[in-house]
Amino acid sequence: MYETVALVGATGAVGRIVLEQLASRQFPMKRLKLLASQRSVGKEVRFNGETIKVELLEPNAFKNIDLVIASTPDEVSAEFAPWAVEAGAIVVDESGYWRMDPSVPLIVPEVNPEATANHRGIIASPNCSTTQMVVALAPLHKAARVRRVVVSTYQATSGAGLAGNEELKDSIRQSLAGQKHSPKTFSHPIGFNLIPQIGSEKHEGYTSEEMKMVYETRKIMGDEEIQVCPTCVRVPVAIGHSESILVETERPLSASDARELFEAAEGVTVIDDLSGKKYPMPLDCDGKDDVFVGRIRKDISSPNGISFWCVSDNLRKGAATNAVQIAELLIKQAAAAS
Amino acid sequence: MYETVALVGATGAVGRIVLEQLASRQFPMKRLKLLASQRSVGKEVRFNGETIKVELLEPNAFKNIDLVIASTPDEVSAEFAPWAVEAGAIVVDESGYWRMDPSVPLIVPEVNPEATANHRGIIASPNCSTTQMVVALAPLHKAARVRRVVVSTYQATSGAGLAGNEELKDSIRQSLAGQKHSPKTFSHPIGFNLIPQIGSEKHEGYTSEEMKMVYETRKIMGDEEIQVCPTCVRVPVAIGHSESILVETERPLSASDARELFEAAEGVTVIDDLSGKKYPMPLDCDGKDDVFVGRIRKDISSPNGISFWCVSDNLRKGAATNAVQIAELLIKQAAAAS
Repeated sequence: MYETVALVGATGAVGRIVLEQLASRQFPMKRLKLLASQRSVGKEVRFNGETIKVELLEPNAFKNIDLVIASTPDEVSAEFAPWAVEAGAIVVDESGYWRMDPSVPLIVPEVNPEATANHRGIIASPNCSTTQMVVALAPLHKAARVRRVVVSTYQATSGAGLAGNEELKDSIRQSLAGQKHSPKTFSHPIGFNLIPQIGSEKHEGYTSEEMKMVYETRKIMGDEEIQVCPTCVRVPVAIGHSESILVETERPLSASDARELFEAAEGVTVIDDLSGKKYPMPLDCDGKDDVFVGRIRKDISSPNGISFWCVSDNLRKGAATNAVQIAELLIKQAAAAS
Repeated sequence: MYETVALVGATGAVGRIVLEQLASRQFPMKRLKLLASQRSVGKEVRFNGETIKVELLEPNAFKNIDLVIASTPDEVSAEFAPWAVEAGAIVVDESGYWRMDPSVPLIVPEVNPEATANHRGIIASPNCSTTQMVVALAPLHKAARVRRVVVSTYQATSGAGLAGNEELKDSIRQSLAGQKHSPKTFSHPIGFNLIPQIGSEKHEGYTSEEMKMVYETRKIMGDEEIQVCPTCVRVPVAIGHSESILVETERPLSASDARELFEAAEGVTVIDDLSGKKYPMPLDCDGKDDVFVGRIRKDISSPNGISFWCVSDNLRKGAATNAVQIAELLIKQAAAAS
């Protein structure tokens, strides 16, 4: 049981769902404090029948806080996380800032719960597109060792926050009305369109979002030899990231081997009946916590490949749910150790 | 110069664009005849300032016709194409029915123009998702021999005809209005959603659309050893198919080798400036005849791979334009031979 938990970024797209999760999962805590930048201070947020006022995120805000769950931009996390650690809190951070820091564990509870050991106050939650992929890959890796992953993503606009979804709707409404749309959140109109760039140019023609899928996957799965070739694409879908994944393993797996492994895996739900037209789709996964897998088939272009389709709610398992699960994991680990 | 050309399926999504192309390209013909099933007989279609009445598609309709361009369902083509051949016409057919027939050349003029030789009256135009891919792959194959292709598609609703686009708009309008949408053309709602199935189940978990990309690619590129692993997905985009392609070649190519090959290739336009946020997108390719390529980069997961993003108007190069280009090619070849 945590005494006091602080939530940083409660009014954002992910923060709202963290609040829902803390309530619906009956998260073990006595008090909740909400912190945000000056702009949101004084806002009132409903939680479990109470009204909580947002307080200022500043160096002294973390006194007597056990746990911080934070969903903020990278630069905000870079500044406040050391304040919280200094005050003795543990920070579960959803930003990208700390993920690749060697002293910071990067955790997906179904995949590498043991890696929380020896944290120094900050535990990072991965990028949304990585989280759902590693949840699906982990059982295959354990059984047959993943060597290479070729992944093409179909990422929802909510990955860019509430503003992303508003822009999707505006773009579509203006297009249907024959009006010109001027994008702000995205670089190009997203309605009836696809944008094959998420993040900025990072490494030899790959974007920052794509390189997160390379580096974070290796760190979470604890295998620096896993090769990943990602292509990240924004699609006109509001919620739910989808991924077309081809995975090559050291030992061959049949499609039915892979299906059994997925079915037995924690956090994975298999929906796979092509002739019955059943497979995961973003509209069906909206608001659910699991990672959904379907279209499981043998790669017909290489001997040791499995191809599959993976969908998950990017605001839930891709962000809020994973962070809350990390916090729950810490409690369980502490209980087991005592 | 053709004396009389017959267009079968002039009132469909692709047929309309064939008409536009015949006019805009000043197609070398003296007369145009329009043929369709009973339902469309008597409809009037404007062409080059004239009004042409649609006539009945029946066994005697092909008398004195030199060339037929046809965009119909498979079963319609299966029936009428032999009538046309019997009457002495050459049929350029966009349906799927004849493509894999060993006696029927499957042609993309930029890739395998020589394969028209020894046709027996029918020449097939490939599936839209295959056509744009082979136009892009051909220069790489010539330079370095393509061994394997991993492709994930992002296919527009117009691939399912005019009804597909109407359903996309209805689905989106109903979703925005909070109303229930009952899909008819697609198996699931397409607005704000993705459907990871195009066509029916065909081969070990792959759909008919996916297997077209395997078989047709081999036939057009004249290499039965090319391995293709496709995933075909319907996206809420009206016009323009996009493809995330990873190609492995026998001899290694650098990203700049690949870019040069694409730039020199007929029918390919390179848009590739990630830091300037420039790459092909469906909205920009709508109404254009070329195949657009960008995000060209070295595969970071294998030694001989190149990854790129490929977009083309599925109704144009994916269908109408390729068929008209085949007809133009036949004229050129006849002129060169005489």
